[in-house]
Amino acid sequence: VLAGGVGAARFLRGLHSLLDPQRITVIVNTGDDDSFFGLHVSPDVDTITYTLAGRANAEPGWGVAGDSFACLGSLAAFYPETWFQLGDRDLATHIHRTDALRRGQPLSRITQRIAQQFGIKTKILPMSNDRVRTIVHVADRGALHFQEYLVRDRGQGRVEKIRFTGVRKARPAPGVLSAITRANLVIIPPSNPMVSVFPILSVRGIRSALQKARVPVAAVSPLVGSKPIKGPLHHMLKGLGHEVSAVGVAKLYRGLVDLFALDTSDAHLAPRIESLGMQPLVTNIVMHTPGHSQALAETLLTELVRKEKVTDS
Amino acid sequence: VLAGGVGAARFLRGLHSLLDPQRITVIVNTGDDDSFFGLHVSPDVDTITYTLAGRANAEPGWGVAGDSFACLGSLAAFYPETWFQLGDRDLATHIHRTDALRRGQPLSRITQRIAQQFGIKTKILPMSNDRVRTIVHVADRGALHFQEYLVRDRGQGRVEKIRFTGVRKARPAPGVLSAITRANLVIIPPSNPMVSVFPILSVRGIRSALQKARVPVAAVSPLVGSKPIKGPLHHMLKGLGHEVSAVGVAKLYRGLVDLFALDTSDAHLAPRIESLGMQPLVTNIVMHTPGHSQALAETLLTELVRKEKVTDS
Repeated sequence: VLAGGVGAARFLRGLHSLLDPQRITVIVNTGDDDSFFGLHVSPDVDTITYTLAGRANAEPGWGVAGDSFACLGSLAAFYPETWFQLGDRDLATHIHRTDALRRGQPLSRITQRIAQQFGIKTKILPMSNDRVRTIVHVADRGALHFQEYLVRDRGQGRVEKIRFTGVRKARPAPGVLSAITRANLVIIPPSNPMVSVFPILSVRGIRSALQKARVPVAAVSPLVGSKPIKGPLHHMLKGLGHEVSAVGVAKLYRGLVDLFALDTSDAHLAPRIESLGMQPLVTNIVMHTPGHSQALAETLLTELVRKEKVTDS
Repeated sequence: VLAGGVGAARFLRGLHSLLDPQRITVIVNTGDDDSFFGLHVSPDVDTITYTLAGRANAEPGWGVAGDSFACLGSLAAFYPETWFQLGDRDLATHIHRTDALRRGQPLSRITQRIAQQFGIKTKILPMSNDRVRTIVHVADRGALHFQEYLVRDRGQGRVEKIRFTGVRKARPAPGVLSAITRANLVIIPPSNPMVSVFPILSVRGIRSALQKARVPVAAVSPLVGSKPIKGPLHHMLKGLGHEVSAVGVAKLYRGLVDLFALDTSDAHLAPRIESLGMQPLVTNIVMHTPGHSQALAETLLTELVRKEKVTDS
């Protein structure tokens, strides 16, 4: 599973209830990582971890459920960027990650140890141990770190360009390429293609490993109609001249994705998906509850198994 | 004021109510500093800061009043050393200090900024910006970092040796020597001489600056009878072959201290203090309340002013 944050986490919650968790490997975007108060925060990794551990906030989907914010309140005396809401329990994760990084441990090992401490059997891998940062160029605001754009500025403004600094030099984290090579199938859950999936695909060797693997690849649209389920994807698609619809998203995955799931309300777009060389799968893609997550994962798996006769061996 | 932790903080609370805070400089022991979870903790500096800000826990005297421990509870998944109880609000101080140190700022500047954020006008200086660590050698346990000895092991075991690693190379923090040179008087509040005051005096140039300054130096006994007001000083004195009494402490300050305050219950020791070349001052030295702190500070100031005709100019 190539994962961004909340959408991917919700999909994985469903996949987990269907498959042996140890058979799942999640390769997670770290382009959203950033430093707050000198602490290394990996928002997408943590969202996946907390969700799979059953510890995530139901809404907004990130952070630890029932967390308190006493430390953040005191940090406000020293820092302006308390707009990034880190709870007391959540901070323990970032304090430990930062400490371990400073001791020279690679992010991938730290990520897996944190997952183990949360009782997670699924392998969670950062896309890379090297530093990649998603930078969003916004009209009249300039180049913003992704969290500044998304959280501080609430995704406002016209997006002119998106860059992933450091991505050319970044190598896939240990285990990433072999997970792709050995996979029976690859799933891209409903995530923002431009800032959640493309950073992963831009890391050297990942896209070509996917193409060489000849394994069925399924993606789920993150849009319902012209609206993203979450986040500012519509602004990004529009700003960069793409169609704001499931078709616009599918086009970004052309040549890579075999099966493209889109919402029942977008059923009329299915022929256009097909014309891109992908099999459309019309289903309910919005995951408000664990039941929705499981149903979507089951529909997708059933279709992939049928399509490619993927066995559960 | 040459300061350790709780005893010094309580004395300073009294001094503050008598003098313009801007006329006071506190030079604080940093031999107790240590790293927990990768965060730089300065226990004595923080105790002084929180106390002068009116934010300290009344008991045990360290930490922030009314703090919560949610983050520490989560850190326990990753670390064994959660015996060092850092509260959520307290952690903000350590997170900021660590961040600022990593950005290359000197501890003295960081310490003063933290104090300013807490609304403190008194100058709080770490004894040195360089790393000095108090190591306590304990029978059958070996060499322990001071916090391991004091907090984790609750000061148990026979003390065989005390060392200050790094102290030979350590330079006084900017402002330390000039504060001593310009002082009208120097006070050593009731602190453990061996692990709170000696680290300060061992930093290159501090002891000789004190001796050259020819300014009256007063010390307050940290013992009442053979018992320390707080902490394991009696074990240290005994282990290292010193008399466990105010006289034993006074002997450690011989040649440095002019006026030595001891508790009314130790009045019979006054002649022996005098024979060490110090003026004894018998008064109530236990500071349970701010009123006690103020009374002790006032008694000491009055006596020093009388003795040396120090003016308030």
